[in-house]
Amino acid sequence: MTEFLDFFGIAVFAISGALVAGRVGFDVFGVLVIALLTALGGGTLRDLILDAHPVAWIENTHYLTVGIVAGLSTFGWVRLRRIPFRVLEVCDAVGLAFFTVAGAQKALSLGHEPEICVLMGMMTGVAGGVLRDVVCNELPLIFHKEIYATAAIVGAISFLLAESWLALGTDIAILIGMLVTLSLRLSGIFFGWSLPVFLKQEGRQRSD
Amino acid sequence: MTEFLDFFGIAVFAISGALVAGRVGFDVFGVLVIALLTALGGGTLRDLILDAHPVAWIENTHYLTVGIVAGLSTFGWVRLRRIPFRVLEVCDAVGLAFFTVAGAQKALSLGHEPEICVLMGMMTGVAGGVLRDVVCNELPLIFHKEIYATAAIVGAISFLLAESWLALGTDIAILIGMLVTLSLRLSGIFFGWSLPVFLKQEGRQRSD
Amino acid sequence: MTEFLDFFGIAVFAISGALVAGRVGFDVFGVLVIALLTALGGGTLRDLILDAHPVAWIENTHYLTVGIVAGLSTFGWVRLRRIPFRVLEVCDAVGLAFFTVAGAQKALSLGHEPEICVLMGMMTGVAGGVLRDVVCNELPLIFHKEIYATAAIVGAISFLLAESWLALGTDIAILIGMLVTLSLRLSGIFFGWSLPVFLKQEGRQRSD
Repeated sequence: MTEFLDFFGIAVFAISGALVAGRVGFDVFGVLVIALLTALGGGTLRDLILDAHPVAWIENTHYLTVGIVAGLSTFGWVRLRRIPFRVLEVCDAVGLAFFTVAGAQKALSLGHEPEICVLMGMMTGVAGGVLRDVVCNELPLIFHKEIYATAAIVGAISFLLAESWLALGTDIAILIGMLVTLSLRLSGIFFGWSLPVFLKQEGRQRSD
Repeated sequence: MTEFLDFFGIAVFAISGALVAGRVGFDVFGVLVIALLTALGGGTLRDLILDAHPVAWIENTHYLTVGIVAGLSTFGWVRLRRIPFRVLEVCDAVGLAFFTVAGAQKALSLGHEPEICVLMGMMTGVAGGVLRDVVCNELPLIFHKEIYATAAIVGAISFLLAESWLALGTDIAILIGMLVTLSLRLSGIFFGWSLPVFLKQEGRQRSD
Repeated sequence: MTEFLDFFGIAVFAISGALVAGRVGFDVFGVLVIALLTALGGGTLRDLILDAHPVAWIENTHYLTVGIVAGLSTFGWVRLRRIPFRVLEVCDAVGLAFFTVAGAQKALSLGHEPEICVLMGMMTGVAGGVLRDVVCNELPLIFHKEIYATAAIVGAISFLLAESWLALGTDIAILIGMLVTLSLRLSGIFFGWSLPVFLKQEGRQRSD
């Protein structure tokens, strides 16, 4: 189940990486590099911090294959027709949901404290996309005002509650965590939901 | 003593992270994420490179608690009143001083060579703030022309000299290292001190 | 042989780091920090992901010395006379060639699968320069439209084919891998060679 989650998460994040890299004008290998960075970055960081060697995609090179195929297919497909910005945001949201829960689940299975699991879940979900945006010199999606880190944190907490407190079984807990993350993030995208921010006005002036 | 240093350093860096994240318009959870990235980033990188597992904040979740409380308090407080830019720079300077010495001390206690200790100290001090600025798409503070990396390097060297060469005892050496780092950095901020640079004019044109 | 490759790669990447850092107006210690980040970043990331501790420059501090000397010499030299942009690009290309092959060779010697070796080679070659450009807030060189990641990937594959398939011996395989990477990248720089990209026009509008 976790492996399937990982494959699916890798595929959608590789697509999102290929879309961003393609948009900023990378060639086919550059697109591939960014697709893999996005797809494998979050999980790699999680495994490094948890000292869970070998890193997932070194132990099982199928991860790599999935990322490469998804990245190249996107590159090929996009050369044929335009892809609206929303597709990128939705792929990113699905990847966020899968990786957040997969990250929290891995930390839990290694016996870490609940707060570490939530943090690891959030980090696994968010890091790949942040790396993608930073390297591509794009304004990070996490930076947008709609619910983003919030979706990952609340989703990871939901997973943990369902797994450890309600004892609903791992598969159902995974499903709940993913649905919570995904619906929060999609609400942010489509309904423009957001939480209170501070000093927005003053902030924009300062950094200009 | 090292633990106290770490707590204090985490608190001031979490505050600086929350200030930057709040200024660019993150919501409350986004602010929390950046506060933790800033507060824990440098130490995490140090522990990964030194292979000192488990990473500090995984072994002792109080680190995490300090960062979360400091980040959320800043978020709450700042919604009430404006905070001048100088507060951010001073928090960052205090965090730089604490983490530089804590990083050098940890490397020394693990038996590494002096040059590795200086580099680890500098890296621990600088990395959290650089990660904060890069993810928030701000011009990195380290990028400003006033003394920055210099303060961390000279401070780490002072700590090492006091500890290993003058044998003044760890506590006094820590104090000396911190005071040197802090006073150099504050001199940079308040008196505009700086070291020679090169090709400034030509440089700015190139990158525009 | 690998050690010599590493020394040479570290020196040219330290020079490229010092050039970028100097151009954006860092002081002497800031230049040193960026020189070391560029020179040691890729190899450090490789060693962390492969769990190959201690990290190369911690085990052998000569690496550090080479980086420091190269960085400081560049700083001193450039204050005397201007350096054309091409010098930076060529240093970066030489570093890319050395580190790509050194990274692939290290992964191979640790017994990893061919696809992991190619990825590790590419990552070792590319990461230092990307870190340099991201921290210095420059448009990453990898981001330029000329062949970049492509050169590293094709070079790493050439090395692996020569070493494992043609069994030409490690030294010759290293030479072949380096020459392939270097000539592809230099062709990109001097002849403007590039591979197809997608959606370039629409992309630039989107990100503005």
